[in-house]
Amino acid sequence: MSYPLEEKLKQWRRDLHRHPEQGFLEMRTASKVAAELTRLGFAVRLGEEVMMADERMGVPPQRMLDAHADWALEHGADQEFLPRLMNGFTAVTAEWDTGRPGPVTIFRVDMDALPIRESDDADHVPRKLGFRSVNDGSMHACGHDAHTSIGIGLATRIAEDPDAFNGTIRILFQPAEEGTRGAKSMMAAGVVDDADFFIASHVGTGVPHGEFVAAANGFMATTKMDVTFRGRASHAGAQPEEGRNALLAAANAVVNLHAISRHSGGTSRVNVGELHGGSGRNVIADSASLKLETRGETSEVNGYMREQAEAVIRGAAMMAGADCTINVVGEAISCKCSEGLAAMLGAVAGESPGIRRVHKADNASAGSEDATYFMERVKEKGGQATYCIFGTELAAGHHNERFDIHEDTLLTAVNVLYGTALALNGRD
Amino acid sequence: MSYPLEEKLKQWRRDLHRHPEQGFLEMRTASKVAAELTRLGFAVRLGEEVMMADERMGVPPQRMLDAHADWALEHGADQEFLPRLMNGFTAVTAEWDTGRPGPVTIFRVDMDALPIRESDDADHVPRKLGFRSVNDGSMHACGHDAHTSIGIGLATRIAEDPDAFNGTIRILFQPAEEGTRGAKSMMAAGVVDDADFFIASHVGTGVPHGEFVAAANGFMATTKMDVTFRGRASHAGAQPEEGRNALLAAANAVVNLHAISRHSGGTSRVNVGELHGGSGRNVIADSASLKLETRGETSEVNGYMREQAEAVIRGAAMMAGADCTINVVGEAISCKCSEGLAAMLGAVAGESPGIRRVHKADNASAGSEDATYFMERVKEKGGQATYCIFGTELAAGHHNERFDIHEDTLLTAVNVLYGTALALNGRD
Amino acid sequence: MSYPLEEKLKQWRRDLHRHPEQGFLEMRTASKVAAELTRLGFAVRLGEEVMMADERMGVPPQRMLDAHADWALEHGADQEFLPRLMNGFTAVTAEWDTGRPGPVTIFRVDMDALPIRESDDADHVPRKLGFRSVNDGSMHACGHDAHTSIGIGLATRIAEDPDAFNGTIRILFQPAEEGTRGAKSMMAAGVVDDADFFIASHVGTGVPHGEFVAAANGFMATTKMDVTFRGRASHAGAQPEEGRNALLAAANAVVNLHAISRHSGGTSRVNVGELHGGSGRNVIADSASLKLETRGETSEVNGYMREQAEAVIRGAAMMAGADCTINVVGEAISCKCSEGLAAMLGAVAGESPGIRRVHKADNASAGSEDATYFMERVKEKGGQATYCIFGTELAAGHHNERFDIHEDTLLTAVNVLYGTALALNGRD
Amino acid sequence: MSYPLEEKLKQWRRDLHRHPEQGFLEMRTASKVAAELTRLGFAVRLGEEVMMADERMGVPPQRMLDAHADWALEHGADQEFLPRLMNGFTAVTAEWDTGRPGPVTIFRVDMDALPIRESDDADHVPRKLGFRSVNDGSMHACGHDAHTSIGIGLATRIAEDPDAFNGTIRILFQPAEEGTRGAKSMMAAGVVDDADFFIASHVGTGVPHGEFVAAANGFMATTKMDVTFRGRASHAGAQPEEGRNALLAAANAVVNLHAISRHSGGTSRVNVGELHGGSGRNVIADSASLKLETRGETSEVNGYMREQAEAVIRGAAMMAGADCTINVVGEAISCKCSEGLAAMLGAVAGESPGIRRVHKADNASAGSEDATYFMERVKEKGGQATYCIFGTELAAGHHNERFDIHEDTLLTAVNVLYGTALALNGRD
Repeated sequence: MSYPLEEKLKQWRRDLHRHPEQGFLEMRTASKVAAELTRLGFAVRLGEEVMMADERMGVPPQRMLDAHADWALEHGADQEFLPRLMNGFTAVTAEWDTGRPGPVTIFRVDMDALPIRESDDADHVPRKLGFRSVNDGSMHACGHDAHTSIGIGLATRIAEDPDAFNGTIRILFQPAEEGTRGAKSMMAAGVVDDADFFIASHVGTGVPHGEFVAAANGFMATTKMDVTFRGRASHAGAQPEEGRNALLAAANAVVNLHAISRHSGGTSRVNVGELHGGSGRNVIADSASLKLETRGETSEVNGYMREQAEAVIRGAAMMAGADCTINVVGEAISCKCSEGLAAMLGAVAGESPGIRRVHKADNASAGSEDATYFMERVKEKGGQATYCIFGTELAAGHHNERFDIHEDTLLTAVNVLYGTALALNGRD
Repeated sequence: MSYPLEEKLKQWRRDLHRHPEQGFLEMRTASKVAAELTRLGFAVRLGEEVMMADERMGVPPQRMLDAHADWALEHGADQEFLPRLMNGFTAVTAEWDTGRPGPVTIFRVDMDALPIRESDDADHVPRKLGFRSVNDGSMHACGHDAHTSIGIGLATRIAEDPDAFNGTIRILFQPAEEGTRGAKSMMAAGVVDDADFFIASHVGTGVPHGEFVAAANGFMATTKMDVTFRGRASHAGAQPEEGRNALLAAANAVVNLHAISRHSGGTSRVNVGELHGGSGRNVIADSASLKLETRGETSEVNGYMREQAEAVIRGAAMMAGADCTINVVGEAISCKCSEGLAAMLGAVAGESPGIRRVHKADNASAGSEDATYFMERVKEKGGQATYCIFGTELAAGHHNERFDIHEDTLLTAVNVLYGTALALNGRD
Repeated sequence: MSYPLEEKLKQWRRDLHRHPEQGFLEMRTASKVAAELTRLGFAVRLGEEVMMADERMGVPPQRMLDAHADWALEHGADQEFLPRLMNGFTAVTAEWDTGRPGPVTIFRVDMDALPIRESDDADHVPRKLGFRSVNDGSMHACGHDAHTSIGIGLATRIAEDPDAFNGTIRILFQPAEEGTRGAKSMMAAGVVDDADFFIASHVGTGVPHGEFVAAANGFMATTKMDVTFRGRASHAGAQPEEGRNALLAAANAVVNLHAISRHSGGTSRVNVGELHGGSGRNVIADSASLKLETRGETSEVNGYMREQAEAVIRGAAMMAGADCTINVVGEAISCKCSEGLAAMLGAVAGESPGIRRVHKADNASAGSEDATYFMERVKEKGGQATYCIFGTELAAGHHNERFDIHEDTLLTAVNVLYGTALALNGRD
Repeated sequence: MSYPLEEKLKQWRRDLHRHPEQGFLEMRTASKVAAELTRLGFAVRLGEEVMMADERMGVPPQRMLDAHADWALEHGADQEFLPRLMNGFTAVTAEWDTGRPGPVTIFRVDMDALPIRESDDADHVPRKLGFRSVNDGSMHACGHDAHTSIGIGLATRIAEDPDAFNGTIRILFQPAEEGTRGAKSMMAAGVVDDADFFIASHVGTGVPHGEFVAAANGFMATTKMDVTFRGRASHAGAQPEEGRNALLAAANAVVNLHAISRHSGGTSRVNVGELHGGSGRNVIADSASLKLETRGETSEVNGYMREQAEAVIRGAAMMAGADCTINVVGEAISCKCSEGLAAMLGAVAGESPGIRRVHKADNASAGSEDATYFMERVKEKGGQATYCIFGTELAAGHHNERFDIHEDTLLTAVNVLYGTALALNGRD
């Protein structure tokens, strides 16, 4: 049985790798997921049914959404589902309700790609084997192509034996994890409110091939902000006093954002990664914009950083007589994994083929993940949640133009997740 | 006649030089002025009669006022007038109303000393001749002792011949010119509202001995501010996030006050001259205070500087989550002299003994003077006003611990001012 | 005689207006000037003969120079002269040496256009009459098309009567006045070293139509700088301490450049008009660049501003552990006009047709001009120099996309300049 | 046996509490320690014998050292030892060399007081019982009076039974632990170079009465700096360009010190706790000084902070054309305790009277301690080191004017330390 699935996993992954779509643009990807899971017998909901519009963050402008809808259609999107996935509503949930009593268990994968131009090196495997990105400037350089394939693979295994389970199994295909922009809108739409168990997963992240982390506890809470300062232009030689210097406001904001105090509650971070301001050497700048992010080891620490950042930005604007707008274009919280559920996954993984070492938990501070919104909600409602990692061999680090995974991790992951489903919802 | 007056002028000046009193503390000085001018037959008003309490700026704290009242009493203040000159109300006006129709002509002198410890050098004339300051830490280092003496001398001359004049002659003895703190409160009390002519004067300021400037037009408008930032203390190692860093607010204010834009309307200045903040190396500073000043070639330019400064200060406080209070402890406007009146003074001076050269006007930007409040009000009401300068030989520059004047300038000045009074109000 | 010249002036001006070329790219313009003045009998020198390569500032990159050479050729550049005008060497001088003793008199005009897209409004005259810019993104919005035409017109008049003059008359056609980038290189090549008289001129600048300013004294000295900070990129979450934050350096530079102290020697200005830095929200910025300018009422004041600016930039880099490079891409000095020469021009203008009012001088601080380099050198060498302005009616202000002049000013200007040549070098 | 010692411990402690001496001024304290331990038979070394002069940090000015020597003499300092303890050389070491083979075991206590005015409240025990500080403005508010007493008590116990031990036992009485100023100079003098075991100890620090921490691992590395910026004064109105604004330099330093990047290697801190600058509102400040500190979870992290701080300070000075001097007035490193030695202490404490609970280690980041210099050196040389804490009941927190300990902790501590000496060096 596993041989054909292994092949299918590769095919899916390579098709997705060849057609990467960035956050909220995953129209082709989601339409194909929806079509396939419908075919398998899952109850599929999608788009605005499973996303709270106002809780999406950093949605691309409408013209980009429209243009990409055309691209998706041209590149084989499923025409039945595509219309409901446009305008920045690209989430899919697929539910297998056995009709029998039993827990609600939810698996979550993510689907979006990155704004990276994929390597054209002759020895870059996707190029060599012909599945290099055809969506120039977008690339699956973080493994979400693998995640989506694993989700479809898990559904395929479940559908093979409808009598094996009790309760309900739901798979979430989330858009816009990069920039931590998409999960909150699905969480707010209630897709995990009834969960007893929740399992998110990722491949790679530095975990060696064949190893498994049952509980990734180190995700930092984060807030991504786009800030614009608006002042008033004036000729810098003739009437400097008429200006309201937006660039000066932005510069003060940069310096003082970095000067936000450390927090005794844990690690914090702040970075202004980009600043663009002004329109000419001899004109007092009437506009300047920043891209920044804060992080915190806990949601509380990040909340402090965000609050301080807002005060700094508003104070810097006031100093220069400028206005400012702060847009939160991404956000994630921190969340610790449920020890019981993680232990269970660890046990399953310990007996799965392809896993040679199981780590109970990794607590070191790492990047950020918005699956934490799902996890926190599940725990608030009394359920258990964890985030696990499947180690794999990487051709290059995450977010590198030469990123690539070892494809046998796909089946390994499906096996562990299917085993987990059996352990949690199996009829015996 | 002039010989004895010349001696009296020196005696008054040396007595005042020996007993210097800083702004709003001129209790001994004012009491002696009031006593002498009452004796001469002038109608004397003083203290709260001629000052609007709320318009005084930078009044010393009550304990200092009280302590100095004791000092004044111990050092020979006139006991009749002293009680009405306490609590920061040290202005005196003396009016010679002929009862005959004629113009209201006002002369203004100032009385206050500086916070400077006078030189103890053996060759410093006041020390050598025994009239060095006995009020340690205070010194007449700007010539206001001379100004007050000139005012008394002018009154003495007027009183000698009551029939010489028509109309009304009034002499203002102003407190707290240093820091531009006292004139506004007298102006607001209405002491120049009925003026046809107004003449303020100063000795020295770099004008050579024997020269006379009939119109000093270059005084810059200015605002002096004391600013305090209040934050919240916290242990910098243990709970840095609990602090609200008042010193950080102050530091940002300093940098950005200096970064206020130039103004195309004329020369501007800004300086933060002092900053004191914090209470210990490992404590987040809960308090920091600034002493700053703005200046402008015109009142409009200074108004711009002040407004920008306030925005900077409030924005800097906001950035750090601190509070701030801004106290205006001194202020002056700019004012151009009336050409007609200045020309008249120039003509009088040109024929006065001791004056060998007359300058019609000096327009170069210079320091600040709050006599401008009187001048502007007089001009608003339709009168004419000017500010004239009697050159003298200086032992060292103004505000220097070795400052000293050539005393023959005292009589020269009285002659010119008396001649002006005759020219304006003489019976013929 | 004047009728046909008036027509020619318009034709030249409209041809130049239609083919605007920015600084150091005036290849078509200069080639046509060189060809026409050679035809008239002037001794023409050009390119590297009359420019010191290292003293040029803000030369465009080579690929832009090369691309524009193609454009110039396609748009009718003179093929004989073009080869010597490539690579950023676009100056032309044309000399009329009578062989008779007499003064060396030099006239200077400028040739470059601005980076502005010309208006396409139906009522914009150049568009209506068919001479709107065909070099999209470049526009003669400051009247240099008129200046070049006036220079050719002046040459035409001179060539009409070779016996009218003594001494030598030279006309300078300067590139890259915008941004004050071109004059210094011509001055350094010695083109005014032998001048007895030097006259630069401009049309418009707010002077009403029919009026003439004989001496424009208010040009401020200025320095234009492009600054790049180079740091080290690092992941802002994972290894922030590995970064060297170029954006933080740039931000500190912005704030502190504006905080450079005022100067008692005269008006000063500083502006950072543009800042671009960083490559991603979560990456510590490894690069940031500024465009800034300083100005001073005198060369000394601007020298102070420049020196302080450099200290600020280097200190800001040091604070962040970054490197910085400072490129001076434009510079001009201040210079007062020679009163005698200006008086002479005023007299000539007062009797010229088309001039109804003559102003001896305008001393108000205004923009900047690099003709000052020529003027200062001429005065250093014992000659006289002035900068005059021909008022004209403007459709919109200088540097506006709808800028346009009244074309009868062309002939008016030629008449005044020719009259000046006669007054200075006429045989009698 | 314990009864009389318990009394002596109290007497010593109360005498020391009544005569608190700040860092490098512990002349009376050290002289009494030296006298008593000499009397007990220890080989005492002191002053320059056991301190490297140049490695002392933050030594008070000479006039303060001289004045305090008088005070010490007047207040009962031992006249034999005092002369060798003057001029900032107040360390004492006391050695008990059995002459028998065996390990070198070193105990370290500290002796200095804080710049705090002790409470005069009627219910403050030291006041009530008559041992409130007689050295006004200095107070033992951190328990070092207890530490010194414990050191003497330990020596007393050891001397009671000379035959109980093998090897060598040495007790270090360190000056100037507050501000982490004194240990480095003793370490540099070699006083622990031969150590097999090293034990430092502290009372209180929040550990409950009767509890014991065998290994305090959380001390942060730290650097204390005093910084002075020197610029050039100038009149802010008349010649602002002549100034070099030291206050502006200091303000930029403050902002940017707080903006030093976080470090992925662990917790970091930075604080500018005090800034004083400038001499008058209208004078460009020629001087400004900062008191600041950095901290790091590890010596590496603190080293990074210190290095960055120095770059910021030098860059800020450069920006303003000012000079700066950076004085390191205190420094400590981080150091982890040796697990084996700590376990041994824990075992001894577990069986000691007065101890009801033993904590193996406390790893939470806390304040700083320069005993780490001794510890690190001991470990480098192959020995073991630990830092233990004796919980006690506090009347108020450390560094509070009402700080007081429960005195039965004195005997408890002596018992544990003596038991440790027996365990390490006992003859059986």
